[in-house]
Amino acid sequence: MDKDEKAIRELVETWQRATAAGDLETVLSLMSDDIVFLVPGQPPFGKEAFKAAIQGLMKGARIESKSDIEEIVVRGGVAYMRNHLEVTMTPPQGPPVRRKGYTLTILHKQTDGRWLLVRDANLAGPHLVVV
Amino acid sequence: MDKDEKAIRELVETWQRATAAGDLETVLSLMSDDIVFLVPGQPPFGKEAFKAAIQGLMKGARIESKSDIEEIVVRGGVAYMRNHLEVTMTPPQGPPVRRKGYTLTILHKQTDGRWLLVRDANLAGPHLVVV
Repeated sequence: MDKDEKAIRELVETWQRATAAGDLETVLSLMSDDIVFLVPGQPPFGKEAFKAAIQGLMKGARIESKSDIEEIVVRGGVAYMRNHLEVTMTPPQGPPVRRKGYTLTILHKQTDGRWLLVRDANLAGPHLVVV
Repeated sequence: MDKDEKAIRELVETWQRATAAGDLETVLSLMSDDIVFLVPGQPPFGKEAFKAAIQGLMKGARIESKSDIEEIVVRGGVAYMRNHLEVTMTPPQGPPVRRKGYTLTILHKQTDGRWLLVRDANLAGPHLVVV
């Protein structure tokens, strides 16, 4: 496996471990300051809004995720990744909430060789698509 | 405006005009043969499945769309684009169906200088996110 692909796979594992451990600082260190997140049904949001949302979730629930990376394409200093996620959020009381679906993520290589997330479209649901 | 960005904006305009005109061949010429589409609530699909779906839509409805490109980032031979779409599908009878939301699209520059869509995550809805 190419070393850039390996580094990106390790980033995903670090992200998941840090999320499960409630280690917000590590999660935030894996994305650029100008990251943009896209999710269905709301406007794009950035790092501060992500931080506020994940902090709330981490306080209220245990967040576990299973990742199945379907592809990583590296082209020079930019890469994109398709990932299938299954996320389970378990609140202290009440049943676990599950979401699954795909993400399309764009990453940039930094001058020090690290990769950071810069854009992330998250299509995980459930969704009831009303047409 | 950078000439690559200009070419990508023209591709989007061509896509929209061709879709409105029912010109399927032109739409298909703007994407790579190995394109992957991601939409909420279903597995990723490729060019043939896109073709079948859009053919059905083009037969049954007039498809108009309004595009508001929020960013195009070009890095060598790869580019990504965030676009806000409003699509209106008007069947011969019955009320128009509207969808709006964001796309995150990845494009590759070909050896002849043309840009083609290679990945497309489409978050346009309406969606009722059930949690």
